[in-house]
Amino acid sequence: MKLLFVGDIVGRAGRKALSDHLDHLIDRHFVDLVVVNGENAAAGYGLTASVLRELFDAGADVVTSGNHIWDKKEIMPILEKEPRLLRPANYPPDLPGSGSGVYETAAGTQVGVLNLEGRVFMKNLDCPFRAADDLVAELRAVTPIIFVDFHAEATSEKQALGFYLDGRVSAVVGTHTHVQTADDRILSAGTGYLTDVGMTGSQDAIIGNQKEGAMDRFLTQLPVRLEVAKKDPFLCGVLLTINDQSGRCEAIERIQQGS
Amino acid sequence: MKLLFVGDIVGRAGRKALSDHLDHLIDRHFVDLVVVNGENAAAGYGLTASVLRELFDAGADVVTSGNHIWDKKEIMPILEKEPRLLRPANYPPDLPGSGSGVYETAAGTQVGVLNLEGRVFMKNLDCPFRAADDLVAELRAVTPIIFVDFHAEATSEKQALGFYLDGRVSAVVGTHTHVQTADDRILSAGTGYLTDVGMTGSQDAIIGNQKEGAMDRFLTQLPVRLEVAKKDPFLCGVLLTINDQSGRCEAIERIQQGS
Amino acid sequence: MKLLFVGDIVGRAGRKALSDHLDHLIDRHFVDLVVVNGENAAAGYGLTASVLRELFDAGADVVTSGNHIWDKKEIMPILEKEPRLLRPANYPPDLPGSGSGVYETAAGTQVGVLNLEGRVFMKNLDCPFRAADDLVAELRAVTPIIFVDFHAEATSEKQALGFYLDGRVSAVVGTHTHVQTADDRILSAGTGYLTDVGMTGSQDAIIGNQKEGAMDRFLTQLPVRLEVAKKDPFLCGVLLTINDQSGRCEAIERIQQGS
Amino acid sequence: MKLLFVGDIVGRAGRKALSDHLDHLIDRHFVDLVVVNGENAAAGYGLTASVLRELFDAGADVVTSGNHIWDKKEIMPILEKEPRLLRPANYPPDLPGSGSGVYETAAGTQVGVLNLEGRVFMKNLDCPFRAADDLVAELRAVTPIIFVDFHAEATSEKQALGFYLDGRVSAVVGTHTHVQTADDRILSAGTGYLTDVGMTGSQDAIIGNQKEGAMDRFLTQLPVRLEVAKKDPFLCGVLLTINDQSGRCEAIERIQQGS
Ligand SMILES: [Fe+2]
Ligand SMILES: [Fe+2]
Ligand SMILES: [Fe+2]
Ligand SMILES: [Fe+2]
Ligand SMILES: [Fe+2]
Ligand SMILES: [Fe+2]
Ligand SMILES: [Fe+2]
Ligand SMILES: [Fe+2]
Repeated sequence: MKLLFVGDIVGRAGRKALSDHLDHLIDRHFVDLVVVNGENAAAGYGLTASVLRELFDAGADVVTSGNHIWDKKEIMPILEKEPRLLRPANYPPDLPGSGSGVYETAAGTQVGVLNLEGRVFMKNLDCPFRAADDLVAELRAVTPIIFVDFHAEATSEKQALGFYLDGRVSAVVGTHTHVQTADDRILSAGTGYLTDVGMTGSQDAIIGNQKEGAMDRFLTQLPVRLEVAKKDPFLCGVLLTINDQSGRCEAIERIQQGS
Repeated sequence: MKLLFVGDIVGRAGRKALSDHLDHLIDRHFVDLVVVNGENAAAGYGLTASVLRELFDAGADVVTSGNHIWDKKEIMPILEKEPRLLRPANYPPDLPGSGSGVYETAAGTQVGVLNLEGRVFMKNLDCPFRAADDLVAELRAVTPIIFVDFHAEATSEKQALGFYLDGRVSAVVGTHTHVQTADDRILSAGTGYLTDVGMTGSQDAIIGNQKEGAMDRFLTQLPVRLEVAKKDPFLCGVLLTINDQSGRCEAIERIQQGS
Repeated sequence: MKLLFVGDIVGRAGRKALSDHLDHLIDRHFVDLVVVNGENAAAGYGLTASVLRELFDAGADVVTSGNHIWDKKEIMPILEKEPRLLRPANYPPDLPGSGSGVYETAAGTQVGVLNLEGRVFMKNLDCPFRAADDLVAELRAVTPIIFVDFHAEATSEKQALGFYLDGRVSAVVGTHTHVQTADDRILSAGTGYLTDVGMTGSQDAIIGNQKEGAMDRFLTQLPVRLEVAKKDPFLCGVLLTINDQSGRCEAIERIQQGS
Repeated sequence: MKLLFVGDIVGRAGRKALSDHLDHLIDRHFVDLVVVNGENAAAGYGLTASVLRELFDAGADVVTSGNHIWDKKEIMPILEKEPRLLRPANYPPDLPGSGSGVYETAAGTQVGVLNLEGRVFMKNLDCPFRAADDLVAELRAVTPIIFVDFHAEATSEKQALGFYLDGRVSAVVGTHTHVQTADDRILSAGTGYLTDVGMTGSQDAIIGNQKEGAMDRFLTQLPVRLEVAKKDPFLCGVLLTINDQSGRCEAIERIQQGS
């Protein structure tokens, strides 16, 4: 089966890039399941009900997220009731929402999706490695096809989780840095790996935000509010070809789709 | 002119990849100047006199560095007297060494090289943006061809410096994360840009270090000593074609060279 | 002369504690100059024009601040024109406001006040030690009586600045952690020292904020908005007796004044 | 019963202060149990077998620790077999050692001791609040007298744990910053609280280390090795009077004992 994962949608420009390119990518690559990271889809900070609907309408089957998912309070009840929306699994227990799910493609294939968040330079969460142990075991009881979105900053932590899960999941792909890395590969036990898939939004920008404000932050050290940039939207994603029986990754292809 | 920049050499595997591939790359691409980041060349931590000589012998014209350059004390006097070795410019004044220099190619072209270090998730250094203002002005008084190695963690800080220096330098290329990014481009005023060039060393590794130890760090949170990995060395670099008169970047090409 | 320094005023409870106790403290101790850290005076985040006036009305002669001074935009023009309001000196150049000033007591004594911010676990500012070198020299050209409010997190950085400036200033007193430390002493060359003076505001609180919200932050890792607490206000300060001729600290006394 | 807790012993100077003052403090205050934080007792970094024996010989009944306990490998087997040595409980499972224990005084009173480590500005550990929930419940099944050493950096996290456990434990006392705070109090449900007890070692020092090296770190940003200071040793501790039946704290008294 073919799984397309699209990196952090940043604001309106990101949603535009998604709706402009997704249908075409699905058709061209015979994609069976589309997973989209939506943590920045609502003006750069979190998700709203209508923005989430927009992502589903554009063709997303599952929406993963990350540290920004909690920015808009109205997402809380949606996290409770919408099984196609995930938030990182390794937040404290008793928070709304779930970090993993099993989804069925049109062809009837079961696909597990797991969303985790890193800890290096980030929040004080539960260990993503041990959370992965438990949740991957749960998912493997249902299906060998498992996709992991690891939302993390440090390259070392991301590569470590990739090797840690090698042979247990179909792919580990990173998000959060908003820059696509060029280290796509298939690890020795069959897990597809990419440190970061990159973002979907304005390219004429600093990780999706207007350049002036982002530069000002560094130059002044003041709490400058970042605004999402608009110009020159593009989509970053990764296409995974996964063996239906074994769950092994057979091919991994990076995608960058601009105008 | 053509400038080849090679990312963080990690230990013996990195030095092997450099000596295995550099001659060939220079010949094939008619490279005029080779800049190599050597901060991890001596067993992963800093540089020694003999390891530095090995880098020059392999074909490096200039060696840049980063946060790890200070790890081995014996490098201190060499920083003072070897003009072909740079350390980030924005350390406190009065430290040994320099962060910029002008070097001449065989064809007699003058090339400025500037080494800076980021602050986000790193040390408490002087502002790299303001340091760049001063040092780029100095270098531009000599030559329009200026290459910047920005050794930094955060993608936002790296992109910000790229846009900040756009039109004032030939290229801004990042190091430190040890993973090559896929966002090579030429910014609108003519500066070549790449968030991270990646590392040179073992690929069967977590950012160049043995997987078991690196994973153990995350799993146990203990101060596990990292050992440089050996298997499957490769070289990551970037080839810049720069206009001799204007200093503008005319082409930027990412390189990954394994066995 | 006698200088009273009052720690971070946190919201309405802090302002109440200040106005309740300051007159009495000034009278009882024959205080010549009152310096107050006001970075959290306006609902926990920064300062407004009216809140600043309230601090002056309560008896503050000089208001220092810290990382939160920039939280409310309306303070920007006031930083430009009100010489009795300081912000840490080691922010980038060209920002509004100043980090040091000389003030005259009723008795005609000149007192230098210097406000600096630490870097460990905080922002990427200029080096507070080198900033102190320059600004202390400037102030000493006018007066030997110099008070330093060092707004910083790490005890090591604070003690380091104390020893670094020992003999050059009358006192180095820390702020920012909101908890008074018990290490008041006079260093060997005559500088009074206290790692943190503590805060002024509600005691039935987590560093001045409502307990429930502050605990929730740790328990959930969500971006919970903190609200200033109200109950049981108290004032934390330090009283410094300084020799008018030499500028040496002759006595340092911690103050905690509740209802 | 009376429990004396002594803050982080730093190197030889700390051990000297402990052996110089502990007997006298025990006698004067009729102390029933002595708990000592030993994470820096062996030259500033961790513990060895002989240094640990020295602490017990000086009169410690229980030794707690913190982030530095893992610095010397030889402590690993001792953590396994010595029940009087604790390390923070909220490290990953399967590490050697334990974070809590029940100890009996000469008078036959059972006292629970719990050692936890904070996460703000520190390592990526398991949640100390949830770890406390579980372990306090376990200890309370044995005895109502429970002492908590919370080894943490941030004042907010420490105060939060104090309020969180108020009424469930006899006292929450912080360590790690090496500076005693002046906020000793008994919270409303009967838990004694102090943000940091301070360190035991040289006072003529930067948190126990030689001033020159510690200052150099800030001034140069180089990886300067810190050396333990020797001059002017003192002991910082806190004396808790705890009701044997209820486990409530009846009195809390800070101690600083120099030469
Ligand atoms: Fe994102
Ligand atoms: Fe993120
Ligand atoms: Fe490196
Ligand atoms: Fe580095
Ligand atoms: Fe404050
Ligand atoms: Fe502050
Ligand atoms: Fe310590
Ligand atoms: Fe510690």
